[in-house]
Amino acid sequence: MSIKSFHPPQRILMGPGPSDVSPRVLEALSRPTIGHLDPVFVSLMDEMKVLLKYAFQTGNELTMPVSAPGSAGMETCFVNLVEPGDKVIVCQNGVFGARMKENVERCGGIAVMVQDDWGRAVDPQKLEDALKANPDTRVVAFVHAETSTGAQSDAQTLVAIAHKYHCLTIVDAITSLGGTPLKVDEWNIDAVYSGTQKCLSCTPGLSPVSFSAQAQEKIKNRKTKVQSWFMDLNLVMGYWGGATKRAYHHTAPINALYGLHEALVILQEEGLQNAWARHQKNHLALRAGMEAMGLKFVVPEHERLPQLNAISVPEGVDEAAVRTILLSDYNLEIGAGLGAMAGKVWRIGLMGHASNPRNVRLCLGALDDVLGRLNAPIHHGVAVDAANQQLVD
Amino acid sequence: MSIKSFHPPQRILMGPGPSDVSPRVLEALSRPTIGHLDPVFVSLMDEMKVLLKYAFQTGNELTMPVSAPGSAGMETCFVNLVEPGDKVIVCQNGVFGARMKENVERCGGIAVMVQDDWGRAVDPQKLEDALKANPDTRVVAFVHAETSTGAQSDAQTLVAIAHKYHCLTIVDAITSLGGTPLKVDEWNIDAVYSGTQKCLSCTPGLSPVSFSAQAQEKIKNRKTKVQSWFMDLNLVMGYWGGATKRAYHHTAPINALYGLHEALVILQEEGLQNAWARHQKNHLALRAGMEAMGLKFVVPEHERLPQLNAISVPEGVDEAAVRTILLSDYNLEIGAGLGAMAGKVWRIGLMGHASNPRNVRLCLGALDDVLGRLNAPIHHGVAVDAANQQLVD
Repeated sequence: MSIKSFHPPQRILMGPGPSDVSPRVLEALSRPTIGHLDPVFVSLMDEMKVLLKYAFQTGNELTMPVSAPGSAGMETCFVNLVEPGDKVIVCQNGVFGARMKENVERCGGIAVMVQDDWGRAVDPQKLEDALKANPDTRVVAFVHAETSTGAQSDAQTLVAIAHKYHCLTIVDAITSLGGTPLKVDEWNIDAVYSGTQKCLSCTPGLSPVSFSAQAQEKIKNRKTKVQSWFMDLNLVMGYWGGATKRAYHHTAPINALYGLHEALVILQEEGLQNAWARHQKNHLALRAGMEAMGLKFVVPEHERLPQLNAISVPEGVDEAAVRTILLSDYNLEIGAGLGAMAGKVWRIGLMGHASNPRNVRLCLGALDDVLGRLNAPIHHGVAVDAANQQLVD
Repeated sequence: MSIKSFHPPQRILMGPGPSDVSPRVLEALSRPTIGHLDPVFVSLMDEMKVLLKYAFQTGNELTMPVSAPGSAGMETCFVNLVEPGDKVIVCQNGVFGARMKENVERCGGIAVMVQDDWGRAVDPQKLEDALKANPDTRVVAFVHAETSTGAQSDAQTLVAIAHKYHCLTIVDAITSLGGTPLKVDEWNIDAVYSGTQKCLSCTPGLSPVSFSAQAQEKIKNRKTKVQSWFMDLNLVMGYWGGATKRAYHHTAPINALYGLHEALVILQEEGLQNAWARHQKNHLALRAGMEAMGLKFVVPEHERLPQLNAISVPEGVDEAAVRTILLSDYNLEIGAGLGAMAGKVWRIGLMGHASNPRNVRLCLGALDDVLGRLNAPIHHGVAVDAANQQLVD
């Protein structure tokens, strides 16, 4: 046995995440490790909270990164806010709603599913109907930006309906944070979780979360212990919280946090509004190119996420072959369909650092080339020009 | 608000972990991010399993890093192997046994505690007595290398006793992996978890685990679902396992895995036996210096961990003041006591990359200086020489 150092190829990441990571973030990862109880590290944690509050647009004191990927952020929300016997309405319009149901049930809760078509936003009326039919519901959960389909739901309206029926809300903002408006305080979201590897353009592995005062109240007054020791916010807060003396809980992933700090500094420098506008602009350019080619979006225009573009695979085209050639000939990664959409769509991310005109042009040009080679029924040689026009406008 | 990039100081990490990280590992972290489903990344995962099997000395197919810190590795073992109503004997001789108890109870299990003095190894006779008194026990759990006290238990003997009573075994090897002999197959350990930030000298944030065929059998035949979705090995195996088609579970922490891969390549280059011998040699040098100064070890000689040295604070000395001066004047981090040992001991790590003669000399010289300034009752100016003699021998 003799395994050598691993040197990855230089990809362009335009799938559903991870997205291209800024060189500044990569460099930050390699800074010297310090102890997780070092006073200098504690100052980093304080700054991290300020930066995350800005990204989430919240004043919530309980705002921090969970030391594990987005699915652990999701689980942190559910295990802390759902107690055995609690009824939870889950609005599902893609893969991640199903994962929420799993979480509810593994907490001993009762999941009531409200189904919407994949590729569409969650229908507020269906949620209200479900709440009327289930007045004992405690929590409403939904995905703000469905990574599996590219659909965006109206989080503000859904939260308002949930609150009318005295429910707490859990919102999946994995793909929305930093890419499309997300206003935790203005929308009165109670619990929200995200990932670092989407529109923050950081490496995967951490999950920013934020909890309202109402959510914290519920956690403090639980009748049962949180079933996860690692994710128990009553304990985590002793470390990340504003306590005068921080209590050791677990060893924080120091260098990963350097990376997230740098990604959030970059976001602060650009400004959240500017980042949202940039994602929208590059999305419109990609759309112009796709439409010029004759390719179609899965999601209706007013429900589309700018950072995740689900495109229908043209009839007769082997979608996996296209992705394989893009990767081998262009070092370009785009995403496959997930769940019910497997084989039917491509998911093209324009997230964070990767949301830029160069990537829009590269992706369109590469798709034009590869689809041409495979004799797909598209209009050739027009996509990049169409995008350029949009970028100039 | 205007927060700047974070530039940590260059510390020397001789606490209970994180330990000094090799520059090779830091550089690996900053390599370009690729997708978690990229074929090249899949080859990295395959290599990672081979390297971890070597480090654990096992042929277990279910050997991989959990995408979260060591406490999540611990929880992964308990939530998968303990079902509601299962009786679990936990041998406690430090802080981490108490955390095991928490895990058992949060899984709905019944924890039977076997207590040993802090700073001592687990007594095999007490375990056997407890098993005789509790013939319905399903699992025995203990800490191989207690990070809170520096005591090492005889894992092979404890596992053999547990098996005599038909119990599965969960072994905490957070601080032992790579630093002191740990032979998962030869000792017949069923489930073992470790951390990356101790003797592997990698950054914190991942938890290598390994499960025997018997443990896997138990997991496959559970009557209840694993309460954690994120940690459910039935699902994780679809991604990390040998399946022909890997199923997406969660987004792996790509760059953190680059770091662990590099740390394991370094371990393979040195050779496990050589790494163990190096830890022992540097421990003996530190011991010679400490004893020359008149400082005393907490743990009896035959139960000491070479990589974690718990030293009694001399009477009248303000232990926190010593650590503060070491950090400010020498950039040297050593650890405080934890739990019942808070205020009474220092924990000096010689782990992984940090286990080297330069650090031994630096630590002894710095302690000599600082204790002198504080008028502590020690023998001055002899420690480094004593260590040097040991290093030459």
